[in-house]
Amino acid sequence: MSYKVDLNSDLGESFGAWKMGQDADVLTFVSSANVACGFHAGDPLVMKKTVAEAVAAGVAVGAHPAYPDIKGFGRRNMACSPDELYADTLYQIGALRAFCEASGIKLQHVKPHGAMYNSAAKKLEEALALAQAVKDAGGDLILMGLAGSKFDEAAEKIGIPYAAEAFADRGYMNDGSLVPRKMEGAFVKDVEVAAQRVIKMVKEGIVEAIDGTIVNLRPHSICLHGDSPSAVQMAQTLRKRLIEAGIEIVPLRDLVN
Amino acid sequence: MSYKVDLNSDLGESFGAWKMGQDADVLTFVSSANVACGFHAGDPLVMKKTVAEAVAAGVAVGAHPAYPDIKGFGRRNMACSPDELYADTLYQIGALRAFCEASGIKLQHVKPHGAMYNSAAKKLEEALALAQAVKDAGGDLILMGLAGSKFDEAAEKIGIPYAAEAFADRGYMNDGSLVPRKMEGAFVKDVEVAAQRVIKMVKEGIVEAIDGTIVNLRPHSICLHGDSPSAVQMAQTLRKRLIEAGIEIVPLRDLVN
Amino acid sequence: MSYKVDLNSDLGESFGAWKMGQDADVLTFVSSANVACGFHAGDPLVMKKTVAEAVAAGVAVGAHPAYPDIKGFGRRNMACSPDELYADTLYQIGALRAFCEASGIKLQHVKPHGAMYNSAAKKLEEALALAQAVKDAGGDLILMGLAGSKFDEAAEKIGIPYAAEAFADRGYMNDGSLVPRKMEGAFVKDVEVAAQRVIKMVKEGIVEAIDGTIVNLRPHSICLHGDSPSAVQMAQTLRKRLIEAGIEIVPLRDLVN
Amino acid sequence: MSYKVDLNSDLGESFGAWKMGQDADVLTFVSSANVACGFHAGDPLVMKKTVAEAVAAGVAVGAHPAYPDIKGFGRRNMACSPDELYADTLYQIGALRAFCEASGIKLQHVKPHGAMYNSAAKKLEEALALAQAVKDAGGDLILMGLAGSKFDEAAEKIGIPYAAEAFADRGYMNDGSLVPRKMEGAFVKDVEVAAQRVIKMVKEGIVEAIDGTIVNLRPHSICLHGDSPSAVQMAQTLRKRLIEAGIEIVPLRDLVN
Repeated sequence: MSYKVDLNSDLGESFGAWKMGQDADVLTFVSSANVACGFHAGDPLVMKKTVAEAVAAGVAVGAHPAYPDIKGFGRRNMACSPDELYADTLYQIGALRAFCEASGIKLQHVKPHGAMYNSAAKKLEEALALAQAVKDAGGDLILMGLAGSKFDEAAEKIGIPYAAEAFADRGYMNDGSLVPRKMEGAFVKDVEVAAQRVIKMVKEGIVEAIDGTIVNLRPHSICLHGDSPSAVQMAQTLRKRLIEAGIEIVPLRDLVN
Repeated sequence: MSYKVDLNSDLGESFGAWKMGQDADVLTFVSSANVACGFHAGDPLVMKKTVAEAVAAGVAVGAHPAYPDIKGFGRRNMACSPDELYADTLYQIGALRAFCEASGIKLQHVKPHGAMYNSAAKKLEEALALAQAVKDAGGDLILMGLAGSKFDEAAEKIGIPYAAEAFADRGYMNDGSLVPRKMEGAFVKDVEVAAQRVIKMVKEGIVEAIDGTIVNLRPHSICLHGDSPSAVQMAQTLRKRLIEAGIEIVPLRDLVN
Repeated sequence: MSYKVDLNSDLGESFGAWKMGQDADVLTFVSSANVACGFHAGDPLVMKKTVAEAVAAGVAVGAHPAYPDIKGFGRRNMACSPDELYADTLYQIGALRAFCEASGIKLQHVKPHGAMYNSAAKKLEEALALAQAVKDAGGDLILMGLAGSKFDEAAEKIGIPYAAEAFADRGYMNDGSLVPRKMEGAFVKDVEVAAQRVIKMVKEGIVEAIDGTIVNLRPHSICLHGDSPSAVQMAQTLRKRLIEAGIEIVPLRDLVN
Repeated sequence: MSYKVDLNSDLGESFGAWKMGQDADVLTFVSSANVACGFHAGDPLVMKKTVAEAVAAGVAVGAHPAYPDIKGFGRRNMACSPDELYADTLYQIGALRAFCEASGIKLQHVKPHGAMYNSAAKKLEEALALAQAVKDAGGDLILMGLAGSKFDEAAEKIGIPYAAEAFADRGYMNDGSLVPRKMEGAFVKDVEVAAQRVIKMVKEGIVEAIDGTIVNLRPHSICLHGDSPSAVQMAQTLRKRLIEAGIEIVPLRDLVN
């Protein structure tokens, strides 16, 4: 039997005169990149450059829309209405897609960022607004969201391709949600442990929750980080372990229809 | 012989809680609308609403990209590099096009706004950057620019469909440029005079400059204004006079290939 | 015995090319104006003009700081940390105060706007951050907040002058909070009823809640609206009734020390 | 005879989640810091932190106002009217001053940033608008501008304290202007040469232009850079050489009245 998974990470988070991220490194370990669209990070010049680099590296590109909050990096909760979420997301998808098409590639997916992601994962109304924007944007875009969250439900209701993502470096509760960042067990710091957990998710569709419960979780994509040298190294090791375990790393488009 | 011309006006210039413009009125007299894309006016919700209204009125939609200057309404000159112009324009085209496609229509044209328009009309390097963005956006978008300006030259060099526009309410110099706003003769205030001038442009391809010279000028589109009740009335009268003179009002797409 | 109260309203909410509000009318009925500081509305040119008009009308000026959300007019909840609230508020106070001092007046008060106001009225931690910013700004600024809310408590703890405000056109719950906008009884639409209620608040320090309970409420300032011709007329009538009832309209500075 | 000069550098140019600059290093070699005010860089939290660090290091603080252009870092020319320049500058001065006063220090000076600085150095109308804002802000703020530019003239006309600045690492034309960045001789790369030039400026009031002409130039402040490790080292060496040459490094306030 053959196993496949996508590896994703955020890209293009520089802004104006400010640099952020190790984009060149990230492109060595991901199969799909979530590119900032100017609402929390990125700007048109950065988007152009980032898409070009992803194309050169053979990495698939997704839109990474966010709340309109540059100063807060899209990490602050904002009470945006479903109408606002829909319009802001459609706007950002369109903007990034223009750079993809100008570079000769097709936009692959949409992964909401930060507070927008976390809020919609819990609120169906918001997840539905985002899913509708993804649908209305056309082009069979894949919505990527937290496995087992309201994103799954919204994607199914709206009728769009969906990719469930899991986190290599995070602990899980017995209901499949992430262990809150301030609780013990929130993070999996040992890369070898993380690799074994991901291999189990991909091959067996399960993960062990912090209370020992076995939880069903079969992700299409694993979220990795590249925002520090140690994160880059962890991501590269993890990728290596997956390949050694016979798991093929492929972009989302090869996994989701 | 049959005569045709497009009538265009700016639309969707509200922003957040602020209203601007008489959009419902404008949609009664134009065949093509230039919709703000969020850089000088407009926001994603306004763009969604504006595109929906244009679709309902059967008016063709174009993108109206601008310098990134909300506070200055895109009217202040900004020394943007060609790279910045290209990326900002591609971004704005993509964003607006997503709303068009979600509404089931094709984006028709791109008309740069305000200071970006005026600057590129004089600087080939800037006009080329804008034309390249229009080309790379794909979809055979029509670039609309000032008749006889660097826009003509750039569109030809880049190889994209081009629509020359003329102004019903402005005087012309003998080189085909507009009479500067502070000079006498800058404005044509009598609507009947304006109508006769436009009819002459469309049927004979000429306009009389302020010094009496006859200048060649054959516009595809006439720019009208709808930002005040008197402007609306002038536009409606002008439209009526053109039709009475046997000129058909059609969207750009029917005039430019 | 002599009775006094301040009447306040929001001012200077135009932005760039967009106009909002009936500022000239508002200045005829208030004794204190809350001037937008550029984060939800207003911009430096608007602030300059607004302060000049308030000075000319003899109306006291306060800062009206908000969340950084121009597109949402500061009405969307944002999860700003106390540190962010403190710094954003101090920034906005300083900016507006420069215009006051350049116009030869002293900044009188600070009234948080919209979602920032509503959130801090319920969360002591946020009210404390705002109160600390008001204190650290110096100049014995008066904090204005919802009567009976966390603002009262915060102002006392931090040790700053405080003005409790009440609403002429809103119903009250028996705990002194406002009737939520979607509940019946949220609004007092009859100006004569509203006037009688305000007179009772000022003279007797009580208001009748929607369940008939008599609630203690002694406001220093009454919030009025000027965003429509009918609101302006209601405000002017109300002002007249207060004066007829022997209540003097004075700026906050004459009421709070 | 005793010689004194101020050393200044830009500070607080981080923004939101983005870091920029070596602020801790810069504070070891300057006597005055120009702190970004949120229009080209900096945000309220960054301003608070930066002022606190400057206070801790005993470095005097100035406002570093800019065009409203975060994405362009205030480096792009913008056609702001004198009214806009005045209001934008007064706004930024007030905002930064609030943090200074909350930290127990007095704002010392105002040095316009980037394109705003370069444009006003050449256009008296703009320099006058900036100087008027500095005056109207009160508190005897010192305007800092390019020695021999329109800033000198504007400060004298408006009647405000003025500090002329010179550049240690730039070549001069025989009219006292800087050698354009693209011309040969634009930069003085050898730190020992730069130090000798600055010592001559301070002690003798002259500098040798690129054509060998001796130009009169007596700066109150020398602009240094701290945006790279080599810039930091150059600045530290230069400071050392000045001290060795018997020149005292003092904040502007001790030099200008």
